[in-house]
Amino acid sequence: MITPIILCGGSGTRLWPMSRTLYPKQFHRLAGEGSLLEETIARLSGVDGIGAPLAICNHEFRFLTAEQFRRQGVDPFTLLLEPEGRNTAPALAAAARHVLDNDMPTLMLVLPSDHVIGKPDAFLAALDRARPAAEAGGFVTFGVTPLAAETGYGYIKAGQTDENGVYPVDQFVEKPDPETARRYLNDGGYYWNSGMFLFEASTFIEALERYAPHIAKDAQAASRGAKGAFESVFLDKESFLNCPSVSIDYAVMEHTDRAMVVPLDADWCDVGSWKGVWQVGERDAQGNLSRGDVVLANVENSCVISSDRRLVVASSVANLAIIDTRDVTYVAPLEAAQEIREIVDNLRAEGRIEVERHPKVFRPWGSFESVDQGDGFQVKRLVVNPGSEISLQFHHHRSEHWVVVSGVATVNRGDDVLELSANQSVYIPAGMMHKLTNPGDIPLEVIEVQTGSYLGEDDIVRVEDRYGRVGETPAC
Amino acid sequence: MITPIILCGGSGTRLWPMSRTLYPKQFHRLAGEGSLLEETIARLSGVDGIGAPLAICNHEFRFLTAEQFRRQGVDPFTLLLEPEGRNTAPALAAAARHVLDNDMPTLMLVLPSDHVIGKPDAFLAALDRARPAAEAGGFVTFGVTPLAAETGYGYIKAGQTDENGVYPVDQFVEKPDPETARRYLNDGGYYWNSGMFLFEASTFIEALERYAPHIAKDAQAASRGAKGAFESVFLDKESFLNCPSVSIDYAVMEHTDRAMVVPLDADWCDVGSWKGVWQVGERDAQGNLSRGDVVLANVENSCVISSDRRLVVASSVANLAIIDTRDVTYVAPLEAAQEIREIVDNLRAEGRIEVERHPKVFRPWGSFESVDQGDGFQVKRLVVNPGSEISLQFHHHRSEHWVVVSGVATVNRGDDVLELSANQSVYIPAGMMHKLTNPGDIPLEVIEVQTGSYLGEDDIVRVEDRYGRVGETPAC
Repeated sequence: MITPIILCGGSGTRLWPMSRTLYPKQFHRLAGEGSLLEETIARLSGVDGIGAPLAICNHEFRFLTAEQFRRQGVDPFTLLLEPEGRNTAPALAAAARHVLDNDMPTLMLVLPSDHVIGKPDAFLAALDRARPAAEAGGFVTFGVTPLAAETGYGYIKAGQTDENGVYPVDQFVEKPDPETARRYLNDGGYYWNSGMFLFEASTFIEALERYAPHIAKDAQAASRGAKGAFESVFLDKESFLNCPSVSIDYAVMEHTDRAMVVPLDADWCDVGSWKGVWQVGERDAQGNLSRGDVVLANVENSCVISSDRRLVVASSVANLAIIDTRDVTYVAPLEAAQEIREIVDNLRAEGRIEVERHPKVFRPWGSFESVDQGDGFQVKRLVVNPGSEISLQFHHHRSEHWVVVSGVATVNRGDDVLELSANQSVYIPAGMMHKLTNPGDIPLEVIEVQTGSYLGEDDIVRVEDRYGRVGETPAC
Repeated sequence: MITPIILCGGSGTRLWPMSRTLYPKQFHRLAGEGSLLEETIARLSGVDGIGAPLAICNHEFRFLTAEQFRRQGVDPFTLLLEPEGRNTAPALAAAARHVLDNDMPTLMLVLPSDHVIGKPDAFLAALDRARPAAEAGGFVTFGVTPLAAETGYGYIKAGQTDENGVYPVDQFVEKPDPETARRYLNDGGYYWNSGMFLFEASTFIEALERYAPHIAKDAQAASRGAKGAFESVFLDKESFLNCPSVSIDYAVMEHTDRAMVVPLDADWCDVGSWKGVWQVGERDAQGNLSRGDVVLANVENSCVISSDRRLVVASSVANLAIIDTRDVTYVAPLEAAQEIREIVDNLRAEGRIEVERHPKVFRPWGSFESVDQGDGFQVKRLVVNPGSEISLQFHHHRSEHWVVVSGVATVNRGDDVLELSANQSVYIPAGMMHKLTNPGDIPLEVIEVQTGSYLGEDDIVRVEDRYGRVGETPAC
């Protein structure tokens, strides 16, 4: 049996403006039918003897991650929640401890949540080859056969002799310069480090105790001191934050003599940039990947995405990324992947909300989206999922007018309970306790008109919350 | 004395997506402080002996045009309203008749509303030179000294001998091919036909009766049969539509032996394309014209406009037009001006609303803007100007919830009259007669949530309208 360990900690900065701090890359549909995380989950169904998955993510992403597991019909699953990211070594140490302490299958298949694998069968075959070696105490890495002299990946140099397609690792090497990358490609025997691993939990903890004992101690303490609610396991904050931010490669792989590599030729891509999205996507005869309401005239080899309801028209350009979201338009050459980081860093330094989140924000009960705002007012569209509810709360500074436009609502308003259907409205003055519930079978859609001198998201006093968020910030 | 005749009939297709059928180029701020029309109006203040202006435009633009005159503090003015455009000869014939019949100054200064003149003083000096020749019965054209071998303009070949800077016209020539344009530039004595003229109303009508008697008859009949309301003069539809669509050049200038040209060296530009906007605008050290919430990194010689509240980021591109409006993003090389026509034509054939109008629509009482829509509902922001009102009306298919978010409102609701201030709301069920008035001194802002099975703009039955629009379509 195998426990899949899904790493959901990526930030995907180079895929801004679609990928944002509070809604990063792995949760977006970038290739295929589902999000990258959903596709990662779906791939597991082909693995023999697969156990319940364990995902590691920031606590802020617990509702988003849980929803995507449920949408894939996977239940049970566990979310190991980090108070803050500390790279892969502490995360995997906490995961290994959790697996051992909770009688889960101890063979850990570590999978980043934000990669694409075009040929899942080739991946399953590589996994079959890796299994005996991992069960025998090896650290098996999956090394992608290079297709180009890429300078953006670390490389794994394989040893000469293999056993059933499993090679000893000769050396882990950092991201090379272009000349070195070309030599690797020509020489052969070098593979891209995909960040996927297969090993026994105990093998990992033993190695960590030897090579990085500080991480082994604190990460295991974080797991043992964790507090749970539903599928969520909150790692102990103090212990976890004691860990340095270190990758598994740096903490263990580069030191152990038990590292092995299984070559993988499965159309793997880390979709790390808009060029990556363009490469793995379906392109038309002119080489364009387009999605959404897009009109192209004499355009070649470009990636044009309209992710909102807007019309995007491009004419007589080539090799461009044109990414249009509700509040941001981004235009750059497909090759200009590195420049995005600097742009995003600058915008973050200016406190721009556009790097943090989208106008549409997902909550455990559904979503809200700011559709208009002006001096002293804001208009939101709320969507409450069937059977869900927004916590019992009140606001100090704002009043709210709700107009139900679809579905049915139960509204707690002070001591009253009202039942509203489409085309009915209710007024909630500032200071009044209220709750909004969808008792129906279809989504409840409400237009909320807020008025008041202060309209920030943090003006919420939660009194009761079905999702355990009383006292949590940022609220809503 | 001079009557300025301002031609507001341009469509500005090549400036899509900012310029749209129902809100074309001349009403937009593209260079300078005001819209192109406002700048045209403002330029007149420097002319000695200027009379009240007369603007010729489509009847649908009467409120927009009137508002821009008022914003410039010009009053009185007359709007000669076409039921449909018929090019410049019929429009100017009707204007000449109107001028003669209404005791307005008969010297007509014909000005397109959508051009930029960088040096107004040079324009005034040229006008002074033109005046005696026009008063003596000449058709004076203003010929722009060519700065490049432009193939997009018609040319005027000047005769050899001048009198105080006024030359006889040797020949009007159509848009030349590149080689011919280069020859014109090298030879000298050729000028761009700017579409500006100075002539006596009677001179024009006499010439028209000789060279295009059919137009002279029908256009004058359209003027004499016109019906007025306020500053609006509606040309008689049947007579006016009898006129063929013909330019003044074709109908008169190419035939008369009284055509003259005054050279004009005034930084004139017809702002006919995004490249034109870029050329006349203020550019930074990298050669970029940017407006609105725009971030540029390593961008050169581009025109980047964000006309809504959206953030537009461009990186490592050059010579591009990136035009971002609320509902459309357009990306193309600055040089690709001709391609826009085809794109817009295709979109129009598909019935796309984005070529017709913006989400924000101006009305005589203020504006409305669709901010959200979904199945069976739509959310609008209404802004009612101080002292203005939306007509007494009802809807067959939709109910409306109004939340006042700024200012004060008087609401007629059936037989009731309600006074609402910010944070108060009212419900108007389908079929109920209603009216919204702003009795206050600041703009009234209302969020309107519409629900119903049909939400088209044409579901309005106007019962009373201060602006004379009862029975008019499209309504609102």
